[in-house]
Amino acid sequence: MKELEERIRRDGIIKDGGVLKVDAFLNHQCDVELFDAMGAEWAQRFKGVPVNKILTIEASGIGIACVAARHFGNVPVVFAKKAQSINLDGEQYATSIYSFTKQREFPVIVGKRFLGPNDHVLILDDFLANGKALEGLLEICELAGAQVQGIGIAIEKAFQGGGDRLRARGYRVESLARVGSMDAGAGTIEFLPA
Amino acid sequence: MKELEERIRRDGIIKDGGVLKVDAFLNHQCDVELFDAMGAEWAQRFKGVPVNKILTIEASGIGIACVAARHFGNVPVVFAKKAQSINLDGEQYATSIYSFTKQREFPVIVGKRFLGPNDHVLILDDFLANGKALEGLLEICELAGAQVQGIGIAIEKAFQGGGDRLRARGYRVESLARVGSMDAGAGTIEFLPA
Repeated sequence: MKELEERIRRDGIIKDGGVLKVDAFLNHQCDVELFDAMGAEWAQRFKGVPVNKILTIEASGIGIACVAARHFGNVPVVFAKKAQSINLDGEQYATSIYSFTKQREFPVIVGKRFLGPNDHVLILDDFLANGKALEGLLEICELAGAQVQGIGIAIEKAFQGGGDRLRARGYRVESLARVGSMDAGAGTIEFLPA
Repeated sequence: MKELEERIRRDGIIKDGGVLKVDAFLNHQCDVELFDAMGAEWAQRFKGVPVNKILTIEASGIGIACVAARHFGNVPVVFAKKAQSINLDGEQYATSIYSFTKQREFPVIVGKRFLGPNDHVLILDDFLANGKALEGLLEICELAGAQVQGIGIAIEKAFQGGGDRLRARGYRVESLARVGSMDAGAGTIEFLPA
């Protein structure tokens, strides 16, 4: 998606260690007009795919998913919650996700009332790097018996391999911008076809 | 806002201790069509008020704010982040908010690049109870020199007094549903004019 790639080039900040900061428009300050265009693009790519629920994870995925939902007939958006601890009261699907940024596991939950075998789920998120967060969401869908119809990502850091691992497992992953390489020193970024 | 009150009566769950669970449509599963109607209602109430930025706080406020922004000319949405610790690197406005739910203080930050003296801010959030979260957001606006034009709330638990305290300080608070009283045993809820 040209518009997103241009925005990353203009307002993204490349840092050492493969870090791409896009907090000016994606995950701290939110450009809702861009989110709307992203939603339209995903809707076009997933045209004809039955989707009755969008699943994302707090916090950065929520705004993107809620704006994009309009392009999927206003289906409900469910966001997985990062919990302090897993309270196995039987009312929640739970898993834990390893965060490389925070260097620790954190529990993630979804209320059982909000995901089940009748759901055809589109998973949306802002970033796909090593894929740990998505693997957690996929596990929750599996626990719920929900069918994952596809995965829509704003920015895939393709050089970290998570996207290709998910594609190899048979999932359809539609990333709107795929970063092939970045150079913090030179301030350059190369995109792969997306 | 009748639509929201009816939805609370239908899908809200009243619990002991003044707890109102609305995770079926507001803050875990999100009814984006309702969010859109809420955005239209706030836009009507704040008609003529200059707003060039919407400020909210993660996680539940984000979806509401991003959908509502469309009714305010697609202004940028900034969400305050709950941080593990306050890193006073000079790049962030920081405060701490006491959570009665979690019974502890947690630090909240907003990047200095995203809020400043030229900003006319509408603060949006899902709940207003004792008002601690909003006081934190107001403090961040003060640190930034931004002008708070108003506060839009989905559900105000008026019996907890936070809304009236903010009104007494001169802020315009527009709550779409104002709960006057709830009874967990009887399962009843009374709304005040909103």
